Amino acid sequence: MGKPKKQKRAVPRLARGFRDLTAADLVARRDMIQRVIEVYERYGFQALETPAIEYVDVLGKFLPEADDQPDAGIFAFKYDDDEWVALRYDLTAPLSRYVAKNFQELGMPFRRYQTGQVWRCEKPEPGRFREFTQLDIDIVGAGSILADAEVVTVLAESMEALGIARGEYRVQLNDRKVLNGLLEVVGCAAEVVPTVLRSLDKIDKVGPEGVRLLLGPGREDPESGDFTKGAGLEPGQVDTLLAFVDAPGDDRATYLETVAGLIGESKDGQAGLAEMRELDEILSERGLGPDQVVFTPSVVRGLAYYTGPVVEVALTFTDPTSGKPFGSVAGGGRYDDLVGRFTGQPVPATGASIGVSRLLDALNKLGKTDPSRGICPVLVTTFDKSRRADYQRLADEVRAAGIPCELYVGGGGAPKQFKYADRRGFSVAVVAGPDEFEAGQVSLKDLRLGRELSQSEGFAEDRKAWLESLPGQVTVPRAELVAQIREILGRHSG
Amino acid sequence: MGKPKKQKRAVPRLARGFRDLTAADLVARRDMIQRVIEVYERYGFQALETPAIEYVDVLGKFLPEADDQPDAGIFAFKYDDDEWVALRYDLTAPLSRYVAKNFQELGMPFRRYQTGQVWRCEKPEPGRFREFTQLDIDIVGAGSILADAEVVTVLAESMEALGIARGEYRVQLNDRKVLNGLLEVVGCAAEVVPTVLRSLDKIDKVGPEGVRLLLGPGREDPESGDFTKGAGLEPGQVDTLLAFVDAPGDDRATYLETVAGLIGESKDGQAGLAEMRELDEILSERGLGPDQVVFTPSVVRGLAYYTGPVVEVALTFTDPTSGKPFGSVAGGGRYDDLVGRFTGQPVPATGASIGVSRLLDALNKLGKTDPSRGICPVLVTTFDKSRRADYQRLADEVRAAGIPCELYVGGGGAPKQFKYADRRGFSVAVVAGPDEFEAGQVSLKDLRLGRELSQSEGFAEDRKAWLESLPGQVTVPRAELVAQIREILGRHSG
Repeated sequence: MGKPKKQKRAVPRLARGFRDLTAADLVARRDMIQRVIEVYERYGFQALETPAIEYVDVLGKFLPEADDQPDAGIFAFKYDDDEWVALRYDLTAPLSRYVAKNFQELGMPFRRYQTGQVWRCEKPEPGRFREFTQLDIDIVGAGSILADAEVVTVLAESMEALGIARGEYRVQLNDRKVLNGLLEVVGCAAEVVPTVLRSLDKIDKVGPEGVRLLLGPGREDPESGDFTKGAGLEPGQVDTLLAFVDAPGDDRATYLETVAGLIGESKDGQAGLAEMRELDEILSERGLGPDQVVFTPSVVRGLAYYTGPVVEVALTFTDPTSGKPFGSVAGGGRYDDLVGRFTGQPVPATGASIGVSRLLDALNKLGKTDPSRGICPVLVTTFDKSRRADYQRLADEVRAAGIPCELYVGGGGAPKQFKYADRRGFSVAVVAGPDEFEAGQVSLKDLRLGRELSQSEGFAEDRKAWLESLPGQVTVPRAELVAQIREILGRHSG
Repeated sequence: MGKPKKQKRAVPRLARGFRDLTAADLVARRDMIQRVIEVYERYGFQALETPAIEYVDVLGKFLPEADDQPDAGIFAFKYDDDEWVALRYDLTAPLSRYVAKNFQELGMPFRRYQTGQVWRCEKPEPGRFREFTQLDIDIVGAGSILADAEVVTVLAESMEALGIARGEYRVQLNDRKVLNGLLEVVGCAAEVVPTVLRSLDKIDKVGPEGVRLLLGPGREDPESGDFTKGAGLEPGQVDTLLAFVDAPGDDRATYLETVAGLIGESKDGQAGLAEMRELDEILSERGLGPDQVVFTPSVVRGLAYYTGPVVEVALTFTDPTSGKPFGSVAGGGRYDDLVGRFTGQPVPATGASIGVSRLLDALNKLGKTDPSRGICPVLVTTFDKSRRADYQRLADEVRAAGIPCELYVGGGGAPKQFKYADRRGFSVAVVAGPDEFEAGQVSLKDLRLGRELSQSEGFAEDRKAWLESLPGQVTVPRAELVAQIREILGRHSG
């Protein structure tokens, strides 16, 4: 390519708010997604993949942030045909576009699942990234509560398929129509409804007293000092709303009674109550009890497009990081107007989205993932360059037995190769020099045993001598290579 | 959410150059990627995922297009911290950033695989999209040809793992140093080297006579009439270059002889020849014969960052669409300077990328995918709304047997539900009304048989009556539900 031009050295920076993911996480994520997809497919959901980029007017403005700040929250840019496009911020808006575009060909109801990345231009915070993975199911074209019940059932079954037991998770339901009815009864002006819903949604973060301030005069964050403008409701209005969202809940019958007592003559409220009653009936017919699905008045969901039942999946175990219940790993609900943005006629729809990173974090903390998955266990060292063909044969033999195996292709002798083996986390090193080849033998080092010993006995310096004196080293006939590797790996599993 | 504002109806358009993918393709793609990843992991490659977005200076300018037009080819936009970012155009540039960033912690050589989408802002053409999936392996930090040989071996084994037989695929190798040596011997000026390489790369598209024009005065495309400026080489120079790249090749020994005869005293050329000799030796030691790996002088690779051996995987079967050999499904090579852009010291690297859509297209055309995978086979119809609980039980029973099953949750009676079943491609419809429930029975319709009959006998109008008279309909005791579904599905498999 001719001579490279002299140029300033580039700095290997990650874009702000982004991250790299490595093998242990990725393999655990792949396993997790696969297990959930098996559930999705068992319920008749079929795969769909829409592109990462959509026209901005196709995506619409439904993010909590975007409600006030029209351009915030998404990554938008001008496209070659001079129209604005953006990276998708969820998988639901693109699904609506897909259904509207293919409305004549698709039979309704249309069940699809999709997994993929979404992007939000939010303020980066520790543990909060601008790119994350969602794993969605939706049923479009069915207005019946049976469709919502299917989504709820799939969510519960997905948790159990991942080994999260009943009691460790809880599918929590509420209804936007119930909330709207309540706001009507309270006499809440239409303009402040989005602010009120957003405030109610924060009860887990700021507690009932925080929500009281957000619904009323406003609230100053004790940590950051940031002031959030309040919805300006009267104390009496606030009391009624708080009485509902802070109600003990978790018991479906109690919820239905509370709602019935609060919504009065509100048409929206009555419709919401009827939906929740029907949901309760269907879930009971299905045998989904309160150890799986509960009604939770504080569930609101941030996105602006929900119109009926809304759902969250909360994990109830204590998160060692925060000392609080782990919280939400999935959410969704009914959104009957989203496809209608395109078609001009109502197309009812309902669905849910699993937050893949959150759920994976939970599985890690519950000890339900295996961090050794995805890490190559065996390294064939290559000390004697004249034996290249023999080393290749050794590696091929291990691979042929279905055991992942790396052939060392870097430079350097034994110390460098052992240091490498140690750093990269191999379990077994295959070692062969002239003596071994001559005698038809091969030596194996149990590197995990070595690492454990080095930690327990304060080992430090002469790594090479130490490795050679390892109790975990054996020399066996060449024909026993694979059997011996299996034995060493077996020692460390479980 | 208050009343929706009146607004112009949105148009459900796909962004130009993008597409949606549906279940049959996605499930086949998932199976394919999984099978290839199993090979990658068996060779010790470990998963990595870098973000979709990187700083523009981190990505660098290595696309064939970007070489002349600094901003073309990528989707770039200004970020919140006022720096330019872009969607990645491949997985190699981000890998280099990752390795440079984590250089101290990573042991070298570092083997990783990555699969994910990449984006290129190229002129959309039929079958060519702006978002596509790659599936890469790379070894960073190893300068030895053994590393290149590992990549070649993994490519060959990946093809075979997908059921592509020897002879149906060919791993084709060439060397950038050989090409540079040849250009040196020919006396080609440094400024035109990129144009010359790009011209040579087009031999499959435009043939030797087209390349002759591109290397010389320039070429007018006979179809579009577009004129491509030539490299301006003398006829004698062009002859020598064409004699090499149009050489019969495919025989490793002949290639080595041809190169030896052409590169004269060129230092680059001699180095390239030595690399190819060593590759030949290693591949022979491994037992990779010319039915798997060949040396092909016309392989150049478009990207600007290659420095040594380059590789392509070509499928040799005739593509029914074009009537020509199917062509390239993967490519890669050695790129020893890419990480050095960041570190300031050379970090050798080699790798390859499978074009996932191209390869999937090939598998489809070879009949090695199953289009029924990912399509839900069973629909439980729900004619009698009073039997909701019973229908749920029927569906749950099928699912519990591990058979994907959709419960019909839409509105409408029998005609609508059968029309739906037909359109969505189910194999079996479960039908139960008062009579069946009363008698402890259930009816099953073999919808695929029905579709076949309707096609063969010119069926047209009274679908409902027709479906009810189907030879494929049986009524069986309730307890035989799953067994009977298995029997019908068994009829259609294979």
